[in-house]
Amino acid sequence: MSSTRTRLSPDLRREQLLDLGLQLLSTRSLEELSIDLLAETAGISRGLLYHYFGSKQDFHLAVVRRAADEMIRVTAPRPEGAPLERLAGSLEAYVDYVLANYEGYASLVRGAASGNPALRQIYEETRTALTDRIFEASGAAGLRDLGVTDSPAVRLMARGWSAMTEEVVLEWVRGGCEVPKTELLRLLTAALPAVLSGPR
Amino acid sequence: MSSTRTRLSPDLRREQLLDLGLQLLSTRSLEELSIDLLAETAGISRGLLYHYFGSKQDFHLAVVRRAADEMIRVTAPRPEGAPLERLAGSLEAYVDYVLANYEGYASLVRGAASGNPALRQIYEETRTALTDRIFEASGAAGLRDLGVTDSPAVRLMARGWSAMTEEVVLEWVRGGCEVPKTELLRLLTAALPAVLSGPR
Repeated sequence: MSSTRTRLSPDLRREQLLDLGLQLLSTRSLEELSIDLLAETAGISRGLLYHYFGSKQDFHLAVVRRAADEMIRVTAPRPEGAPLERLAGSLEAYVDYVLANYEGYASLVRGAASGNPALRQIYEETRTALTDRIFEASGAAGLRDLGVTDSPAVRLMARGWSAMTEEVVLEWVRGGCEVPKTELLRLLTAALPAVLSGPR
Repeated sequence: MSSTRTRLSPDLRREQLLDLGLQLLSTRSLEELSIDLLAETAGISRGLLYHYFGSKQDFHLAVVRRAADEMIRVTAPRPEGAPLERLAGSLEAYVDYVLANYEGYASLVRGAASGNPALRQIYEETRTALTDRIFEASGAAGLRDLGVTDSPAVRLMARGWSAMTEEVVLEWVRGGCEVPKTELLRLLTAALPAVLSGPR
């Protein structure tokens, strides 16, 4: 037997299917993303998909894990610039990500909050990764520029700022983006030093 | 037949059972609050409870509705005082409520986020009632005192401040109340004008 078609290794094939799942998730909730839908779109059998992913839940977790990695990647702050400029750039990438992937992202936030432990863990890790940037990527010098010293109260308020940002951006999209995007970004960026400079 | 025992009307009896459900919910999640548990604690039959509440879901909704009303009631701002003082008083009542009812409150937030439509509606109504106070109870004069003019952007950020407050207080309790309560209250109170005065 010989074939001129490119044969992908199982790992690569799995990666490709995950990318397809991610694409389907951008305009669908997690509940709407079924093995059947993926099989149909990919043009392969359900049996083969179960071979790659084990179960629907494992498939969902793999897609969500990839979505989280993708969000962390696209929102990575640029290496240079003043702390607030870098934050503003990262925030704009986050808003664009939510705009482009609203259905899937909103369903991840819901799924995590519902108490599904595996989803919850991915969500918490992602939020921690995004929030910790405030302390790590910009570094202690960045915090000093904001007039802030790291403390448990500052960590708590940074987590609060993340929750505020998530809620404001989701609500902004739900409401049809009435406030201009530049204004939204300016408000959320300005809120961080305002909120973090409270602790004394 | 005669009896010296006080006979309660069905409505009053139902109210009493709801109060008992609310009490049980303070140290339990909604998932842990079963008809069986209520029947055992109240010393009446499961059949009678189904007579009063129809189904477990109806019972849960009635208890959650009562919990929401209770939270709105205990956090009502005092009628007098400067806007920020009234807000601080209301916020302290909210923190005390979450401290006293952590399990049930956290499970309501989770349940609402999970997409259960009836829970979601109660949760949204409650959050709206609490957030609208910023605009109604303190009134336009109160907003002016904070240097704020009502606008879609201000409404969006007020909603964000509510989400921040919920997250910060839940995380504060989860983490063992490391930051002193007075400091927590001061930070959240100061954050409101800081966040709302952004829009221009």
